Amino acid sequence: MDLSAAEAARRIAAGALSAEELVRGCLERIRAREPQVQAWTFLDEEHALRQARAADELRRSGRPTGALHGVPVGLKDIIDTADMPTENGCALHRGRAPREDAAVVKMLRAAGAVILGKTVTTECAYFCPGKTRNPHNPQHTPGGSSSGSAAAVGAGMVPLALGSQTAGSTIRPGSFCGVYAFKPSHGLVPRSGMLQLSRTLDHVGLFAANLEDMALLAEQLAGWDEGDPDTRPRARVPFLQTLAEAPPIEPRFAFIKTPHWERADPDTQEAFGELAEALGERLEEVDLQPSAADGWDWHGTILAAEMASNFEREWTSGREQLSPQLRALLEKGREVTAIDYQRALRAVPRLVEGFDELFTGRYDAIVTPAALGTAPKGLHATGDPVFCSLWTLTGMPAISLPLMQGANGLPLGVQLVGRRGYDARLLRTARWLIEKLA
Amino acid sequence: MDLSAAEAARRIAAGALSAEELVRGCLERIRAREPQVQAWTFLDEEHALRQARAADELRRSGRPTGALHGVPVGLKDIIDTADMPTENGCALHRGRAPREDAAVVKMLRAAGAVILGKTVTTECAYFCPGKTRNPHNPQHTPGGSSSGSAAAVGAGMVPLALGSQTAGSTIRPGSFCGVYAFKPSHGLVPRSGMLQLSRTLDHVGLFAANLEDMALLAEQLAGWDEGDPDTRPRARVPFLQTLAEAPPIEPRFAFIKTPHWERADPDTQEAFGELAEALGERLEEVDLQPSAADGWDWHGTILAAEMASNFEREWTSGREQLSPQLRALLEKGREVTAIDYQRALRAVPRLVEGFDELFTGRYDAIVTPAALGTAPKGLHATGDPVFCSLWTLTGMPAISLPLMQGANGLPLGVQLVGRRGYDARLLRTARWLIEKLA
Repeated sequence: MDLSAAEAARRIAAGALSAEELVRGCLERIRAREPQVQAWTFLDEEHALRQARAADELRRSGRPTGALHGVPVGLKDIIDTADMPTENGCALHRGRAPREDAAVVKMLRAAGAVILGKTVTTECAYFCPGKTRNPHNPQHTPGGSSSGSAAAVGAGMVPLALGSQTAGSTIRPGSFCGVYAFKPSHGLVPRSGMLQLSRTLDHVGLFAANLEDMALLAEQLAGWDEGDPDTRPRARVPFLQTLAEAPPIEPRFAFIKTPHWERADPDTQEAFGELAEALGERLEEVDLQPSAADGWDWHGTILAAEMASNFEREWTSGREQLSPQLRALLEKGREVTAIDYQRALRAVPRLVEGFDELFTGRYDAIVTPAALGTAPKGLHATGDPVFCSLWTLTGMPAISLPLMQGANGLPLGVQLVGRRGYDARLLRTARWLIEKLA
Repeated sequence: MDLSAAEAARRIAAGALSAEELVRGCLERIRAREPQVQAWTFLDEEHALRQARAADELRRSGRPTGALHGVPVGLKDIIDTADMPTENGCALHRGRAPREDAAVVKMLRAAGAVILGKTVTTECAYFCPGKTRNPHNPQHTPGGSSSGSAAAVGAGMVPLALGSQTAGSTIRPGSFCGVYAFKPSHGLVPRSGMLQLSRTLDHVGLFAANLEDMALLAEQLAGWDEGDPDTRPRARVPFLQTLAEAPPIEPRFAFIKTPHWERADPDTQEAFGELAEALGERLEEVDLQPSAADGWDWHGTILAAEMASNFEREWTSGREQLSPQLRALLEKGREVTAIDYQRALRAVPRLVEGFDELFTGRYDAIVTPAALGTAPKGLHATGDPVFCSLWTLTGMPAISLPLMQGANGLPLGVQLVGRRGYDARLLRTARWLIEKLA
């Protein structure tokens, strides 16, 4: 069953498909692929089917249904669910059973979605990998930290999934697993009820198999929640409507290689050269504003300082059960001074202003790699987030589009980055690009 | 001329008084008292009179006038003015001439106010005193850091003035100078264009000679400004209307002595004993929630860390020109770690929730001293903010009412503290208290 989420929702709403059939289809696919892919950390088939049957029952009763009525969604296991454990990929959190759903889970349930199960995360959404393998080649990493969500959508196990991004944890696995991966603007989607690494850097991440599904999912999740002080009451963002519109003029792209371009694989460099050629005069290479070159350091300072603060309990109560990688980061974070931390925080709005000028002046989106290359071989690491950190720091919306592949046949994403707060337009620009390259 | 601001505004609006007459009255009073009080650091009589004449001209033309039309206001010299220097009481900022008015100055001008001049601040709104003396006895400190604004209103030189509070810089000088001093909720009045010591702790402070004037002034200043990320778009707060209403039921007061009660002067302890007696069953002594006892340390950590960050330029370019007191604080702040700083920041919302419960449960306001006692003798220091720090940390609205005096005849304030965000109600409760004790 390779229905898109949007098509499935339409059929369910029309009575041409039952949520139970749809969920059964997903479960069959999971049974077939899971032994190899290992995307899930919790999946109770009966519980999923009960949700589906309840959705069908509700529809038959004639009561109003939501935009995702009966559509299954996978959730990274750092997103709290009241009806399933949430273990954060952390030895210290084993058996953790939250009493309340995260804000995004409430939003999904309000839209009628079936919460299919919990997907594998790296340890505490940091670097130490879980069991998941790349759905396109099990000898390669799926990327991380949202490994299971990216792999599950990549393997066609579920049409939609949620993850998170604090460095490159959505865009990178999205690129490696050949799916659409979207990190909306900081503060657009509430993070209440998710494992907090860094208030400044944490974002909810979205995975889907196409752009319409992505818009449908994003439209359910943008909003205010009093548990997330960075969200604001705002009008509903019309993702689907904007995506369906044609851009008023042909978009222009700023190709930003960043100071880390030389580290990209030759495959990646070549693929972006071809992309630039295909876009012709619609794309111009643009140098990063000089102050942005420090962005990677600021990102590192904030990440270390805020994670050290958020993991004080784990540090005190059982740091010997954490991986050496995570322990090293927390140790580093405990040494950061308050003035260095504040200096990094203060740089963010200035950086965002600089990029705002780029968008008001000339460009609709930034084009840049999603990762150094295709998914690296081996399961001991999840790849490098270097092409994502700056867009995470600045809270700008970013999406990885599965438009290219490497010489090894594995997927390679094109990352588009939009103006902060202009999320729906970024998806519209992405659609234009996809159609242009088709 | 001892008109209240509200009465003066009414007469000016009715054409029974000109702004020029009012300003001339203030200037005369200043000429008489300034040699002793030394409240002003910049005052250009002609410039003030020009503003007054322009206000009179505008009124005569029949164009709409604002709520403070023609009313003079004094501004602490850390509040930027485009037409007067703003030197922050800092040797390194001598001759500083901002190009733009602070947000509150724009609001005052929009309401028709005459910006009379700039009042003396301690060095960088921290502890090292300026030249100002207590208007009730020139051998005593006026308090600080808003020394000139409190003294100018206390000496009847100007009906309204603005200051700031990061520890006790409004409430304490208000108490010492025998005026009404109000620190609205954190984020209610925008701080854009004012010297920043600490985003978390800085508040705009208001001085007036009575409660109606205070409400009139506060009503002009509450609002959103995009330059202050802690303000929010919100409906206008009806300070005057709320003040004019009777409380729906007789207010109840929580008398909170705090862990520092033993440090209060015997005079203060006795005066509060009498106040408690006068209020009878309307007042109950309430213990501070245990976690709040750490509030003073958290306040100190945040103050040091944020000031160190905000004064990096001064530290680098000329710290030898700063007072030893300020230098010591910045030195201390540079040593604070990011985790200690974040731990303190994180405590604030929990503290506020604790106090919210107190207000929803039983009480309308907290009663607590404004200072250890009356203004100490001597001009080498400005007194101790210990009875203010907690309410600054929690961002709760606080007002000092000049209702008592010490054995030395100097004024002694009663501090009322309200629920965060319920500023207008605090003024209404204060009016009830004043009438009750009258």
